[in-house]
Amino acid sequence: MGLKSVKVVRVGHRYVRDYRTLTHLCLVSRALGVEAVYLEEVEKDLEETVADVNRTWGGGFAVLPGKWKKVFEDAKAEGRTVVHLTMYGSPLQDKISELRKKRSFLIAVGGPKVPPEVYKMADYNIAVTSQPHSEIAALAITVHDIQKGEELKKVFGDYRLRIIPSARGKQVEQKP
Amino acid sequence: MGLKSVKVVRVGHRYVRDYRTLTHLCLVSRALGVEAVYLEEVEKDLEETVADVNRTWGGGFAVLPGKWKKVFEDAKAEGRTVVHLTMYGSPLQDKISELRKKRSFLIAVGGPKVPPEVYKMADYNIAVTSQPHSEIAALAITVHDIQKGEELKKVFGDYRLRIIPSARGKQVEQKP
Repeated sequence: MGLKSVKVVRVGHRYVRDYRTLTHLCLVSRALGVEAVYLEEVEKDLEETVADVNRTWGGGFAVLPGKWKKVFEDAKAEGRTVVHLTMYGSPLQDKISELRKKRSFLIAVGGPKVPPEVYKMADYNIAVTSQPHSEIAALAITVHDIQKGEELKKVFGDYRLRIIPSARGKQVEQKP
Repeated sequence: MGLKSVKVVRVGHRYVRDYRTLTHLCLVSRALGVEAVYLEEVEKDLEETVADVNRTWGGGFAVLPGKWKKVFEDAKAEGRTVVHLTMYGSPLQDKISELRKKRSFLIAVGGPKVPPEVYKMADYNIAVTSQPHSEIAALAITVHDIQKGEELKKVFGDYRLRIIPSARGKQVEQKP
């Protein structure tokens, strides 16, 4: 299958307003084969939600604490291409062929209050449409295009429950 | 460009917990060229947020009240293909060629409490991975794949602000 290595960093967040959004961001990242999400602070209940999903559905997805600048620097030192998602950036469809030539990525998602340095330090500032919407959708489409849809086939090891896809209804396999 | 016609329906919701998620769902739909989202109830502040985004950034995206069953029936009467997104369904990648042959769609997003009839009445039950994540990401990837990425190029008419894509920084054109 040969998925590219992708990590994600969230630049800044306000916990109280953002708990559900952060949970979605983490679960989408996990489901699409992202290895880890870095957050400025990892709150206990988010950590537990993610650990619980890993235990039930498998895989080794991680949520880790990390300030964006340090995470950017480490990623660059590792040879990762740093992609900052912003509605102000270059259209994804204009850069996707170039991005697909890279081996590994750090994708930064933020919001309106992202410091200007983020735009400067990123290798690419990429827009998934120039319209306001959701960093979760922007991330999902970016990972999907970078991985050419191969991420949808990812198999998660060491699960307790696994869904058997079906045209109607719900079929779940439970490990004995 | 020739975008296919896509509408979205949210099956059930609990407003208090879901306000941000619903807003994201609507804004993602709008940004990806969906014509309308149907919700069981359209709360005033969500309606205002969407109206404000339309006024500022253009286009005629609508949020409309509608119970899922009636919306399904009307869509079918119009010849729309009804696609229900669920982690239990058939993998998107197995059905995408078939879906791309259809002209117009109603995409239903729900959650764990979706009534069994939704699975029966939908023409397709489709999974964007069989992992738990986010209906926003699932919707984004489904629309992106159905439209073959053409939705990212949509131009919104009658805007007050428009972003000029740029590699670094923010460039916004304001209508006089």
